[in-house]
Amino acid sequence: MLVLGVDCGSESTGFGLVASDGRRHRALVSGAIRSTPAMPFAERLHRIHGGLTELILAHRPDCMAVEDIFFARNARSALKLGHVRGVVLQAAAAQGLPVAEYSPRAVKSALTGYGHADKIQVLHMVRSLLDLASDPETLDASDALAVAICHLHSIGAAAAARGAS
Amino acid sequence: MLVLGVDCGSESTGFGLVASDGRRHRALVSGAIRSTPAMPFAERLHRIHGGLTELILAHRPDCMAVEDIFFARNARSALKLGHVRGVVLQAAAAQGLPVAEYSPRAVKSALTGYGHADKIQVLHMVRSLLDLASDPETLDASDALAVAICHLHSIGAAAAARGAS
Repeated sequence: MLVLGVDCGSESTGFGLVASDGRRHRALVSGAIRSTPAMPFAERLHRIHGGLTELILAHRPDCMAVEDIFFARNARSALKLGHVRGVVLQAAAAQGLPVAEYSPRAVKSALTGYGHADKIQVLHMVRSLLDLASDPETLDASDALAVAICHLHSIGAAAAARGAS
Repeated sequence: MLVLGVDCGSESTGFGLVASDGRRHRALVSGAIRSTPAMPFAERLHRIHGGLTELILAHRPDCMAVEDIFFARNARSALKLGHVRGVVLQAAAAQGLPVAEYSPRAVKSALTGYGHADKIQVLHMVRSLLDLASDPETLDASDALAVAICHLHSIGAAAAARGAS
């Protein structure tokens, strides 16, 4: 099972590919697609779309995992984040990739056991669970790996529940 | 000059291609890309992206014109609309199409002389300015033709200003 986690952001969209045999997870690649505020917004969206499409075509993950953000601080930031998420979801649909969505609280809870954990606590758990020798490139990459791990835990729990029934 | 106007919406995204020789405008094609709420949201975004990409490849417009919506009623509706706008802008960028953005008030004002005109008033002016024998297919298609006309007026005014200077 190969999961592409994505952390949406207009200036930096994190990504992380996590492979799992059902017991152990390992990170194949992680990083962030960056753009400068000077770039036209449509170009930034196109760069994010192109970067994710390349990753999907190169690695053929089984699923994309992203945070579902229904409550942003305000309408303006929600609108901007929505643009990025739209492009990310469409990039998945264009390649026939199913998308799993988790609330930020569910991701933090899955990783640390605490729904209000901060990004550094999540980073430490990402390093530990993936047995990484060093920190991921950025906190956005760490968050992307985290949502991928959350998905693996979620389907692992579902499989365990099926096995027990 | 051929302008593709787009009216973004998650259930119905209107489009309208308007050709102009600088004095007279005419509608080449207009309509709406529809999806049902039962479709997964990523699939709806993919359908909008695919529909617009087909239009762009078939007609090779010089520019896309869309409304710039920075203030939605609430964060949730802003987020949803943002997803659609993101896909629309990326579809343009992917084909190297420049995007012109106008506020809803600017579009209404350009069409009717009144920034708070309703959709029916805009529809009447779209019919009149494009010399249409019947109403556009939907109000979303009318709004898409309206933003295309707004762009043509805007660049016409800019050209006139350059000629006068």
